[in-house]
Amino acid sequence: MADKKLSTEPYKGVRDFYPEQMFLQKYLFEKMRQTVEVFGYEEYGASILEPAELYRAKSGEEIVNEQTYTFLDRGEREVTLRPEMTPTLARMVAQKKRDLTFPLRWYSLPNLFRYERTQRGRLREHFQLNVDIFGGEAGESDLEILTVAYTLLKNLGAKDSDFRIIVNNRKIADRLFERIELNDEQKYKICKVIDKRNKISDGEFKDAVKTLLAEKADRFLEIVDSNKKLVEVLGEQSPEVKELTGLIDGLYANGIKNVKFSQNLMRGFDYYTGMVFEIFDTDPKNSRSLFGGGRFDELLKIFGVESAPAVGFGAGDVTLLDFLETHNLLPEYQSATELYICRLEAKFAKEINRLASNLRERGVNVAVDLTDRKTAEQIKTADKKRIPFVLCFGEDEAKNKKYKIKRLATGEEVEMGEKEIVNFLKRK
Amino acid sequence: MADKKLSTEPYKGVRDFYPEQMFLQKYLFEKMRQTVEVFGYEEYGASILEPAELYRAKSGEEIVNEQTYTFLDRGEREVTLRPEMTPTLARMVAQKKRDLTFPLRWYSLPNLFRYERTQRGRLREHFQLNVDIFGGEAGESDLEILTVAYTLLKNLGAKDSDFRIIVNNRKIADRLFERIELNDEQKYKICKVIDKRNKISDGEFKDAVKTLLAEKADRFLEIVDSNKKLVEVLGEQSPEVKELTGLIDGLYANGIKNVKFSQNLMRGFDYYTGMVFEIFDTDPKNSRSLFGGGRFDELLKIFGVESAPAVGFGAGDVTLLDFLETHNLLPEYQSATELYICRLEAKFAKEINRLASNLRERGVNVAVDLTDRKTAEQIKTADKKRIPFVLCFGEDEAKNKKYKIKRLATGEEVEMGEKEIVNFLKRK
Repeated sequence: MADKKLSTEPYKGVRDFYPEQMFLQKYLFEKMRQTVEVFGYEEYGASILEPAELYRAKSGEEIVNEQTYTFLDRGEREVTLRPEMTPTLARMVAQKKRDLTFPLRWYSLPNLFRYERTQRGRLREHFQLNVDIFGGEAGESDLEILTVAYTLLKNLGAKDSDFRIIVNNRKIADRLFERIELNDEQKYKICKVIDKRNKISDGEFKDAVKTLLAEKADRFLEIVDSNKKLVEVLGEQSPEVKELTGLIDGLYANGIKNVKFSQNLMRGFDYYTGMVFEIFDTDPKNSRSLFGGGRFDELLKIFGVESAPAVGFGAGDVTLLDFLETHNLLPEYQSATELYICRLEAKFAKEINRLASNLRERGVNVAVDLTDRKTAEQIKTADKKRIPFVLCFGEDEAKNKKYKIKRLATGEEVEMGEKEIVNFLKRK
Repeated sequence: MADKKLSTEPYKGVRDFYPEQMFLQKYLFEKMRQTVEVFGYEEYGASILEPAELYRAKSGEEIVNEQTYTFLDRGEREVTLRPEMTPTLARMVAQKKRDLTFPLRWYSLPNLFRYERTQRGRLREHFQLNVDIFGGEAGESDLEILTVAYTLLKNLGAKDSDFRIIVNNRKIADRLFERIELNDEQKYKICKVIDKRNKISDGEFKDAVKTLLAEKADRFLEIVDSNKKLVEVLGEQSPEVKELTGLIDGLYANGIKNVKFSQNLMRGFDYYTGMVFEIFDTDPKNSRSLFGGGRFDELLKIFGVESAPAVGFGAGDVTLLDFLETHNLLPEYQSATELYICRLEAKFAKEINRLASNLRERGVNVAVDLTDRKTAEQIKTADKKRIPFVLCFGEDEAKNKKYKIKRLATGEEVEMGEKEIVNFLKRK
């Protein structure tokens, strides 16, 4: 046993959830679950431990080596703390592909780990709602996924003006790259340049394109100069452009109008094959993306099973809580406990237990003070814990079986028998 | 990108939760939350990542090195995936000791990691309900903790004859060791021998005691021969014995009679200071302990803060689900989705979305089929997913706005307008 004093700090970049923070997490998770279940999604889960090879397949060596928690277990197996849920989801779907019933609507609320510098909105561990459809028709599924994301923000109290949905389609870029005949390496690298376009100056963007595409750079820059030009080149009736405009029309029909096309939205993961989107806070104080997702029709192939059309998104708890805070949408802390019984003397313990037990059986959340402190201190305890009602149990209560229920917020006090307490508290 | 086929198996010793397994986990967690919140407990949480030193302090080098997942992060910090929640709980309470309001009733539902051979009831990752009181009077708090544990099993549908509560008190052993004047090393080692007493033969037990205690062995064996003898030696009115009998009397007063004293129950962790208990399944097929806990009044000291009386327990999901299965108490899978809308033709997509959206706004969980398969196949999908009702939307429905709601279990079909659907489904 160590004699030195241990630190009470959590590990760097992760959070302790005291009841006040847990209350917010529970509020957020409940809204998430309600929203997605109303659309018919079923919850699944998995361990945070995954074989490292699961991420090597689609994320590349550097990401696994430099941005994840990866270690050797005692059996010399390389294990990674999952940095995202999609590979696990694909693994699970691939494993039971023959037994599962499609279309599949699944959601999960995993915690994810990234080894990175901590900053606002970025921690080493965060939770992320994951919502996915496998095996649905593409257009309708993309529309539903975006509608679910939008509905969640509305259910959290957001106004349309608080956030903006940005959509793109990987096929549009793919078709453009084909037109100007880029090779695979150029395609891969130009995607990363496009992804950064909004973060760098026009000059820097042009320089990067010229370095990469040489004699093809001018043609490329001419086309991507505006959305109008891009659509003109690909053709309004081309399947890629129609997929995009069809989606935006569908969103409008669902009453979702805070949506915008951006040819610069690429998303980091390599597995996307069609529609991609992100949702941003319109408040510049909280500029990180709140939701991100897209279509990944080919992912199951890495497990050697036939692929299935798939689309989904992730929404992280850290950025969403920042969003709710920025827009004043966080709920006020409330205790789940409804009544606190103060014990005027230790000798009433058994009678108090009996009363508490009867109330609990009828669904009232009751805490009993377990100390012999002065009554005023016991009441103060209830108040600090934000428990709305107290009952002080002493000689009179033991004798008359009448109890004064005091509402701490106002100080008002009503006397009643045991039977009335349940209705009284449930009405409040 | 790897070309070889990836395995779809999860990492060894951890579980995938498909919706059917997740349903059971959600059922269990909900019962746990309901039960403890009715007693006034508040939920807290923390990361699975903790500095390794947190466990070295009370669990010893070997446990950290051999039974936990411990690794160096890129900053050369030693990190452990938490093997139990109590050290984290103590860390959090110590950190905010001045701001927290006592008595504190906290619970959590953490996942815990142990690097060990997998077997029935023992996996490398499991979830565990943790329920603790800090700062309450000892006798009343011990009684409440045991009452909460008992109530949870009853709320899960167990009968008194399905499980047995075994209690002991570390102080009883401590007093005995004082009587026969054991030194610290002997005390520590004899605890481990007593802990194994029920698993070895009488002869083996006696031999182990003789090896360890030499000339004191006979006196020791004489005293621990029976509970009666032990109580006689310590004295019925000794504080240790009174604490134990007081607890058992309290449990009887609360209607809890499947409880038994065993002087052999020691519990593995070194931090226990008073009452300890475990709850066992009475069915020999599932002999592992379902709940375990006890009093740990000194634990906060390792953080250099003043200690506070504390008692709590843990109850693991793997053993509890085994218990429920053994006693036929697992609920049947039910989908959270109430209605499945089959789409007879793609052209009705917009109208179906409008209908689904209206129903969702009134709280009905509705999934829409997103394929152009035959109606019979779409209905089969709903049935396989255990969604109770289907609605087929085609030409007639689009024209007349009358919908046939079919209950899949019986085949019965009722026609109604949009407004009636909500009430119809909510009544069922």
